Amino acid sequence: MSKYDIIVLGSGPGGYVTAIRASQLGFKTAVVEKESLGGVCLNWGCIPTKALLKSAQVFDYLKHAEDYGLTLKDADKDFSKVIQRSRGVADGMSKGVQFLMKKNKIDVIEGFGKIKPGKKIDVDGKEYSADHIIIATGARSRELPSLKQDGKKVIGYREAMSLDKQPKSMIVVGSGAIGVEFAHFYNAMGTEVTIVEFLPNLVPLEDEDVSKQFERSFKKAGIKVMTSSSVESLDTSGKGVKAKVKTKKGEETLEADIVLSAVGIKSNLENIGLEDVGIVVDKDKIMVNDWYQTNIPGYYAIGDVVPGPALAHVASAEGITCVEKIKGLHVEAIDYGNIPGCTYASPEIASVGMTEKQAKEAGYELKVGKFPFTASGKAKAAGTPDGFVKVIFDAKYGEWLGCHMIGAGVTDMIAEAVLGRKLETTGHEVLKAIHPHPTMSEAVMEAVADAYGEVIHL
Amino acid sequence: MSKYDIIVLGSGPGGYVTAIRASQLGFKTAVVEKESLGGVCLNWGCIPTKALLKSAQVFDYLKHAEDYGLTLKDADKDFSKVIQRSRGVADGMSKGVQFLMKKNKIDVIEGFGKIKPGKKIDVDGKEYSADHIIIATGARSRELPSLKQDGKKVIGYREAMSLDKQPKSMIVVGSGAIGVEFAHFYNAMGTEVTIVEFLPNLVPLEDEDVSKQFERSFKKAGIKVMTSSSVESLDTSGKGVKAKVKTKKGEETLEADIVLSAVGIKSNLENIGLEDVGIVVDKDKIMVNDWYQTNIPGYYAIGDVVPGPALAHVASAEGITCVEKIKGLHVEAIDYGNIPGCTYASPEIASVGMTEKQAKEAGYELKVGKFPFTASGKAKAAGTPDGFVKVIFDAKYGEWLGCHMIGAGVTDMIAEAVLGRKLETTGHEVLKAIHPHPTMSEAVMEAVADAYGEVIHL
Repeated sequence: MSKYDIIVLGSGPGGYVTAIRASQLGFKTAVVEKESLGGVCLNWGCIPTKALLKSAQVFDYLKHAEDYGLTLKDADKDFSKVIQRSRGVADGMSKGVQFLMKKNKIDVIEGFGKIKPGKKIDVDGKEYSADHIIIATGARSRELPSLKQDGKKVIGYREAMSLDKQPKSMIVVGSGAIGVEFAHFYNAMGTEVTIVEFLPNLVPLEDEDVSKQFERSFKKAGIKVMTSSSVESLDTSGKGVKAKVKTKKGEETLEADIVLSAVGIKSNLENIGLEDVGIVVDKDKIMVNDWYQTNIPGYYAIGDVVPGPALAHVASAEGITCVEKIKGLHVEAIDYGNIPGCTYASPEIASVGMTEKQAKEAGYELKVGKFPFTASGKAKAAGTPDGFVKVIFDAKYGEWLGCHMIGAGVTDMIAEAVLGRKLETTGHEVLKAIHPHPTMSEAVMEAVADAYGEVIHL
Repeated sequence: MSKYDIIVLGSGPGGYVTAIRASQLGFKTAVVEKESLGGVCLNWGCIPTKALLKSAQVFDYLKHAEDYGLTLKDADKDFSKVIQRSRGVADGMSKGVQFLMKKNKIDVIEGFGKIKPGKKIDVDGKEYSADHIIIATGARSRELPSLKQDGKKVIGYREAMSLDKQPKSMIVVGSGAIGVEFAHFYNAMGTEVTIVEFLPNLVPLEDEDVSKQFERSFKKAGIKVMTSSSVESLDTSGKGVKAKVKTKKGEETLEADIVLSAVGIKSNLENIGLEDVGIVVDKDKIMVNDWYQTNIPGYYAIGDVVPGPALAHVASAEGITCVEKIKGLHVEAIDYGNIPGCTYASPEIASVGMTEKQAKEAGYELKVGKFPFTASGKAKAAGTPDGFVKVIFDAKYGEWLGCHMIGAGVTDMIAEAVLGRKLETTGHEVLKAIHPHPTMSEAVMEAVADAYGEVIHL
């Protein structure tokens, strides 16, 4: 029986990053993976979708080339090549993780791992033991009874990024990041897209102003938006799918080639031995403390299987925190109030901290500022004037409570707010940090100026 | 004679921003402009060049559409339309400043202003007085004796962004931001471009690693690069221009349709009355203190006419500081060590603080980290793997001495470093600020991790 210091179960962005950090810290480390290194993120999530969305962006430039003084004929997409490129990028990244495992001397144990009492783990009949076992099995697409996935006509994100043939029409159910990214991608490719959201707003976790701007952009792009609506049942007996949708105005029947279910995720907790070991699970999540220890000593859990936002960067950070704590380093617990979230549709969305509504409900008196990209020279020059930056400060102590961005490239701009908030910046300091001109990032400075009545370009 | 609290001479990004802030602070304000509101920045600099560069970027996507699974025929540019779009963007921005002047109740005095003793200013024969006169007359393209501009075959940036006809070949002299942006633009449009730089590296003010990467990218794009070279003389007698270029290997004669001189700028100090008033000028700059006061009470100067980097965002910040100080607000002097600089060629460059060489020369012991975009999932997905983020920390106290970025979209990413440095962050704090995945901005976190031996994805 092979013995390790640390075995990580699952090699997604939680698992493989944890393993690398563990190895850096001197632990003899192994990672167990039943499928492809990199997990959903690299193979079926973050990375391949960004490749698809890049093709969508470039296709969009082709369609609007004239606006930039350019000419061309017969702009078209080769759907299978778009998919192929995305798969190629994913494969490359997965190979990259393979390289990293080797470089960091991490053993990759292929197979389905099941934890056992006594800090052991069984992988397809072979047993391994470790001082510390870290569960990072991630999550998968959640299935609702009314949206049973058959992988053909009713699909999840996995199938959505590897279809053989482009559907003529698609109903996307759910408007979180996954739903809207695919809605945007397929719409850009020329599929007729309807998006159905149960709550009153698209991207319902975002600040309401962001949701509203996003809905305007989606409608302008030709996507049919149905909010406060839910799919009650599907009929897949005919050629395509018929969906009965309950709206505020009554019931409506939609038809499409394909229904994409993007109604959230479900943790991968089945058959991994949690019950045998006696690890406490509640509401589909493994219960852990600040250092990701479960109730059973020697067993830890990180990533989508624990409470908190199910995001790749959170999983990575949790894993690093977990092993640094095991090592005995001086570790700070993760501040779950300062986790950025990004959505890569068009326009992009990036946000961190509280929405205006949340901040009000928390009892703060607010200073709110907003700067639209229509007033940004860079955005005008780039032809991307949609969107804005919105900032929320506590009026009393100047704390930066929230930052919400929608527009071109904002997913690369939110880090400023994350770092600023971590360093407990005041609005005044952001305002006096000289932002380069002409950039989209000036909008952050201007939004802060707006909050304090000092905005220049409005 | 009209009397104001504040008159600003010049309406560039220094002048008009100063006027707006002055008006916000309750000052009766006027701005004097001899040409178009917004100055060089809006009309002949930052903004119209960004419009041109956007067309270049989109044209580049057209040329590489196949890489993204897309097809098209006969991709071409309509040069005059590309120029026209850029001029349109500039005009729109200038009108925007007009609107801002009106909204902020700032009088715009059209004409050539000349300051006079007694805090007066003469504009084409009409006299105005003010308690405070702020000189913000900016700068223009510098002319070298060996590069006399005739506006036809030997041109400056102004002509370069409004040519009637695309030149077949062009020699760009000087590889600062202006030089390389035009070199990139014209090369992308299909002009045969040679760039001549006197110093050993392109973009010679940047960190050497950045310069080297940039040179590789320029060469890959087909631009002929001549460093450690200088144009000794021009012969414009024939059809095009013949340039005698001194290189390390000897003299070479280049021929091209047009020579673009981008060898720096010259302050606009002539005939504006400095001598009459007795304002001290040294080395082409007006001497000022931390609050932009000249040696004569009541006269101030900001922007390109004072020492410091000649950048739009610096001019704006100086003007704001100047009038806030006049108002008696508690004002911090600008930290000239924390001014970001951006270059919008392809790849983009953004940097702040010291280069590695400067930091070493200053006697620091360094922790240097670097993360290449080839290892970034987002960059791979976007097809933009060129470039890196490099960070420089003081090994002893952890001060973030410098940050140097080269790659797609980095000009929108440098604000994080500016704010972080302003807030006196340590590397550890940047590392533990959770950056969203997958973004280019993760490279900042990873570069810091690299500096401290904790990088994950290398």
